[in-house]
Amino acid sequence: MTTFGPLFVPTELREAVSDAAWLDAMLDVERALANALSLAELVPAHVAAAIADKCDPALYDIESLCVQGRAAGNPVEPLVRALREQVGGDEARYVHYGATSQDVVDSAMMIVARIAEGCARLAREHRSSPMAARTLLQHAVPTTFGYKAAGWLVAVTQARSTLGETELPAQLGGAAGTLAALGKNGRRVRSLVAAELELSEAIVAWHTNRRPVVRLAAALDSVAAACAKIGLDVVLLAQTEVGEVAEARGGASSTMPHKRNPVRAVLARACARGVHAQASLLTGGEYEHERAAGAWHAEWNAISQALAFTGGAAAAARECLDVLEVDKARMRANMTSDLLSERRAFGDDDPDPITYLGSAEPFVDEALRYYEGSV
Amino acid sequence: MTTFGPLFVPTELREAVSDAAWLDAMLDVERALANALSLAELVPAHVAAAIADKCDPALYDIESLCVQGRAAGNPVEPLVRALREQVGGDEARYVHYGATSQDVVDSAMMIVARIAEGCARLAREHRSSPMAARTLLQHAVPTTFGYKAAGWLVAVTQARSTLGETELPAQLGGAAGTLAALGKNGRRVRSLVAAELELSEAIVAWHTNRRPVVRLAAALDSVAAACAKIGLDVVLLAQTEVGEVAEARGGASSTMPHKRNPVRAVLARACARGVHAQASLLTGGEYEHERAAGAWHAEWNAISQALAFTGGAAAAARECLDVLEVDKARMRANMTSDLLSERRAFGDDDPDPITYLGSAEPFVDEALRYYEGSV
Amino acid sequence: MTTFGPLFVPTELREAVSDAAWLDAMLDVERALANALSLAELVPAHVAAAIADKCDPALYDIESLCVQGRAAGNPVEPLVRALREQVGGDEARYVHYGATSQDVVDSAMMIVARIAEGCARLAREHRSSPMAARTLLQHAVPTTFGYKAAGWLVAVTQARSTLGETELPAQLGGAAGTLAALGKNGRRVRSLVAAELELSEAIVAWHTNRRPVVRLAAALDSVAAACAKIGLDVVLLAQTEVGEVAEARGGASSTMPHKRNPVRAVLARACARGVHAQASLLTGGEYEHERAAGAWHAEWNAISQALAFTGGAAAAARECLDVLEVDKARMRANMTSDLLSERRAFGDDDPDPITYLGSAEPFVDEALRYYEGSV
Amino acid sequence: MTTFGPLFVPTELREAVSDAAWLDAMLDVERALANALSLAELVPAHVAAAIADKCDPALYDIESLCVQGRAAGNPVEPLVRALREQVGGDEARYVHYGATSQDVVDSAMMIVARIAEGCARLAREHRSSPMAARTLLQHAVPTTFGYKAAGWLVAVTQARSTLGETELPAQLGGAAGTLAALGKNGRRVRSLVAAELELSEAIVAWHTNRRPVVRLAAALDSVAAACAKIGLDVVLLAQTEVGEVAEARGGASSTMPHKRNPVRAVLARACARGVHAQASLLTGGEYEHERAAGAWHAEWNAISQALAFTGGAAAAARECLDVLEVDKARMRANMTSDLLSERRAFGDDDPDPITYLGSAEPFVDEALRYYEGSV
Repeated sequence: MTTFGPLFVPTELREAVSDAAWLDAMLDVERALANALSLAELVPAHVAAAIADKCDPALYDIESLCVQGRAAGNPVEPLVRALREQVGGDEARYVHYGATSQDVVDSAMMIVARIAEGCARLAREHRSSPMAARTLLQHAVPTTFGYKAAGWLVAVTQARSTLGETELPAQLGGAAGTLAALGKNGRRVRSLVAAELELSEAIVAWHTNRRPVVRLAAALDSVAAACAKIGLDVVLLAQTEVGEVAEARGGASSTMPHKRNPVRAVLARACARGVHAQASLLTGGEYEHERAAGAWHAEWNAISQALAFTGGAAAAARECLDVLEVDKARMRANMTSDLLSERRAFGDDDPDPITYLGSAEPFVDEALRYYEGSV
Repeated sequence: MTTFGPLFVPTELREAVSDAAWLDAMLDVERALANALSLAELVPAHVAAAIADKCDPALYDIESLCVQGRAAGNPVEPLVRALREQVGGDEARYVHYGATSQDVVDSAMMIVARIAEGCARLAREHRSSPMAARTLLQHAVPTTFGYKAAGWLVAVTQARSTLGETELPAQLGGAAGTLAALGKNGRRVRSLVAAELELSEAIVAWHTNRRPVVRLAAALDSVAAACAKIGLDVVLLAQTEVGEVAEARGGASSTMPHKRNPVRAVLARACARGVHAQASLLTGGEYEHERAAGAWHAEWNAISQALAFTGGAAAAARECLDVLEVDKARMRANMTSDLLSERRAFGDDDPDPITYLGSAEPFVDEALRYYEGSV
Repeated sequence: MTTFGPLFVPTELREAVSDAAWLDAMLDVERALANALSLAELVPAHVAAAIADKCDPALYDIESLCVQGRAAGNPVEPLVRALREQVGGDEARYVHYGATSQDVVDSAMMIVARIAEGCARLAREHRSSPMAARTLLQHAVPTTFGYKAAGWLVAVTQARSTLGETELPAQLGGAAGTLAALGKNGRRVRSLVAAELELSEAIVAWHTNRRPVVRLAAALDSVAAACAKIGLDVVLLAQTEVGEVAEARGGASSTMPHKRNPVRAVLARACARGVHAQASLLTGGEYEHERAAGAWHAEWNAISQALAFTGGAAAAARECLDVLEVDKARMRANMTSDLLSERRAFGDDDPDPITYLGSAEPFVDEALRYYEGSV
Repeated sequence: MTTFGPLFVPTELREAVSDAAWLDAMLDVERALANALSLAELVPAHVAAAIADKCDPALYDIESLCVQGRAAGNPVEPLVRALREQVGGDEARYVHYGATSQDVVDSAMMIVARIAEGCARLAREHRSSPMAARTLLQHAVPTTFGYKAAGWLVAVTQARSTLGETELPAQLGGAAGTLAALGKNGRRVRSLVAAELELSEAIVAWHTNRRPVVRLAAALDSVAAACAKIGLDVVLLAQTEVGEVAEARGGASSTMPHKRNPVRAVLARACARGVHAQASLLTGGEYEHERAAGAWHAEWNAISQALAFTGGAAAAARECLDVLEVDKARMRANMTSDLLSERRAFGDDDPDPITYLGSAEPFVDEALRYYEGSV
């Protein structure tokens, strides 16, 4: 068996979105459904137990399910068939990827929290470290490195909060969303399944109202974008001529050993591009009737990739901040006389940018309070 | 002077995102800033009054400001210069498009509310009108047209609520976000400006944390997607062979007078594609340091187009629902014997799909309650 | 009437893609069709003359056609109706935007040719001007500024050649592509129309095989990308700390007069983003049967915007190169001792980068030969 | 080791873009480079032989190279280091993915050729089989199914020809594109490497002029779009109410055995979405100086996914055509009386659509000639 593609995604995350992980998640749902039907007294307890017993990934051959999944145009189909063969008779019908998503989202949240902590540390340490602010990549006025880190902190904290608020409702709609096969018990079974999977309930089936998927992707995109912004600023500050920051153990160059490449910052940017491409693929308007003929099938890979690359971006950004060396002296030295005279333009003779920067510090404090309130 | 491009956008909306509207919005901000500085006693009241006096769009030549804006790479620059010439001396420095956005967002909200009402009406009327549910465009099981309309209703209501919750904070950061030029008064002036413009306040300047823009675009995209989904389902139901719905006064065909084209549904889909392209352009990771060298400048047109086309999609979807003719008899007749036997497969001898559809109705009711609670 | 959106697009180009320009182009096609039908002896010469006579834009009210176009979901419909009213009876049926596109493509080609000439000039002048090559924004090894300009030159020349080779076939397919209404004369009339409009002929109608549109957009995107690459390199070289190039008459900053913003480079980047968003919208797989229910309608604005913004990017890049000041001394001074020792690493004691750079010069010459051969 | 994501991509193609395939391709390039240096007498033949000897994938641990690749931000780095350890001293420096791309492109070409043959067969068989042409999904005028298949044929043939013409130049530029380390021998070595790999030569290094990658992606996107168009038309014609075509051995539904889902058509559409998302990610304007800090790194996964999903789309479209059952009687029966009266509107009393369709047949023939000329 071969691995596919995203070299820059940490191994754990590749595994979290692997075929094996999907299989686990699908079996979790089947087990939850069996239990829910049993609690609702629609299925005898011993049948539910028998089904749950067969929801063991070790009983199934992933490669073979993949091949059959392509034939059926649907990865659930062959699994349900295989499960039936194992059990004999079942009510297991529909599946979603809420479970896997939730797991990966939770893991991503943890990594994001550590980026935020890295930003907060820099914001505190460099609350009053003067540096040039740059607009259109030209020196503008003085700022502090703490203010820059506070800007990263706010973006990461906001993105994390958006991710945390993303609703991942359970999907149980039956063939056409109406749970017709369950008759009057439909809504009750759905509640039990949702409770068992610790997911929220949708108002109506979201088979062709892909809001949960689109919003999850948008939330991932905002995390990735916050990581990419850190990466971009670090890459620019680490330029040979600027030299205000460096990654401590930069990527070695095979041909140019003198270089200290800001590798983690670069990876954060690269991974973020991957997330954005997938988020753009997802839009809610092209889902025909009660089940889309293509757009739905395209989601599985898109959301896998988005999850994996968000994890990749977050891991890279966190590592980047962890090893970031900040050269305060160089920051000060790079501030041109223009910047100091700019200071005087506002009617102050004292060219000391530290004094001048009093205006930045309260914003740093406000950002830190926002972050601390959000943890 | 020539109009540009989006033929399918209603005239009012073209005007709402026109150069003239931007000029109005920019002058509104300059006026609010002058008033705020006066309230904060940083500018004498008579100076603020003089500035406010010159914030009259009639005093400026838009075409000339556009030409100068291209030269400066920034539309605010020439306006501020022109305003200064008119007033002599000013503190007016920064601008945002919150005001215009808010206006257009408000207008869009009104149109979206009317789409929701259209969906709700259909959901109520056809709560129990049986039709075939279709997955992969094949008949699946019976459903009701009310259930389909309830699905549209939920999507529109959710999208409207997302749009309504979109935070549009005032932007006042000065040259590099620290409001340095205002010294210790910075945060107070910012609060006054935000209050005057009835916008919220950001934690730190969002010059290069484009969350408000990205989220506004995502909210617009979700409205447009909800409209496109309605358009897609209507286009499919209106097919010659299906004939379950029709737009009452369909677009005439110049060459084929027998056709009844579902024009509004088609336009809703077309406009939604335009929104999605612009939403995809916007991502938060490519904004250098304290002001981006390109990505920021690309936003103005992107958000204008997204606003205009969302309005176009919403207007088309609303009109489509307003004139929709529903052929209940055809819906019933199209239900194949397969669907009826499907019914029997669940152990029920009564092939009447209406009875069978008892499972759909509670979901319709739930969707209507959700909608009514959100108004 | 109000202008819409793309502030950064030169006025000429806004006009070239305006509603008025579309009207002109549509009337051109109607006239060509009338003449073709007359040549094919399917329409009496005096009727064709009468139609041609009415193909005068001054006879029509654009705003009113726009409003009717929205109602019909099709801008051609009301025009054909209005033309019929003017003439009485006609065969004019289908339209395309080949003509307008060709005009704008031709104009864009001229601008692009001037960017290429700017690059070639810099490549010649700085064939041997040493500077640091930068990978991941770190100094790598020495190169010459001429080599960098040669890279731009190759990209622009290739993009121009792609644009020049873009096939813009005439579209005349009738209601469903078969030209049924013209009976056996269909293909002959199509040939005559294509000849009259100086466009190529498609094999079959391309109503739902959007290759010409997709490829035109891709060609525009490649021009825009070549402009954006120049913009990006200029923005980076113009950074305060790097200072190797500057735009001679940079955009004034209203608040920071010491800044010399690389405005044209920034605009080239901004416009390129707009082109890319539209190119991404266009893809050939979502066009139902013989005429798409939405995807087709979305093209008009997309291709207008792509054309306009490509023009904007090209104009900005050309101006940027025209006013570019190159600081050879600073380029040399920025080369660090690392770069010189890198030189020695290859077994050469002479640390003079000029000698070393012998390897870059032949590539510059090759690029210039390629460019000169393409003119 | 786990597989990643694209369930719907055939196993062969997953393998063709796997980490293992990249390793093979990178080692191929190292071997070609060693041989070229030997031919150019820059490296003794026995050294080249020793290097070639170590270019055996079995000597390397992919997972370990992946982990190191993430650390270095570059998958080549650890491989070169590992190769050096195996050989001791080497000249192998740069790499590209031309080889892998070429292999996958060649495989894709073969599959595409078979789609074209499937279309041609249908065009020939149904050259005169009448059916309704549909615009905006409404019956328009009569056409033939052969004409529809001819449209698919032209699109597939054009896309295949674009793919076949995609230039995949060898990349050998050294640290900054100038091949400085090879001194005066640079261009000669580059020619030898290109010849050995059977690739063309670039004018200058394309490290930051990503035209080959962008155009390859666009060519893949056009293949995918042609497949998606076939998929869309098949899905629409296979609708329960239309029933004009069916996939012979359609995907079984676990819950609704009466359904005959057009699974392959659906998969072609789904895969095409994946290709388009990756093609949109790639644009040539964001590559800094001589090596981009992120955009380059994002390409590897993007092009892998685009290649894999194009293969998936092509395989699905080919299979779809291979098993397509065409119901000529239903096509005829679906033609409404409107369509026949439409016929009369053109002054012909004979309502037989077959006679009428004489206008479609010559286009079918022309498309077949075009296809046959291109093989």
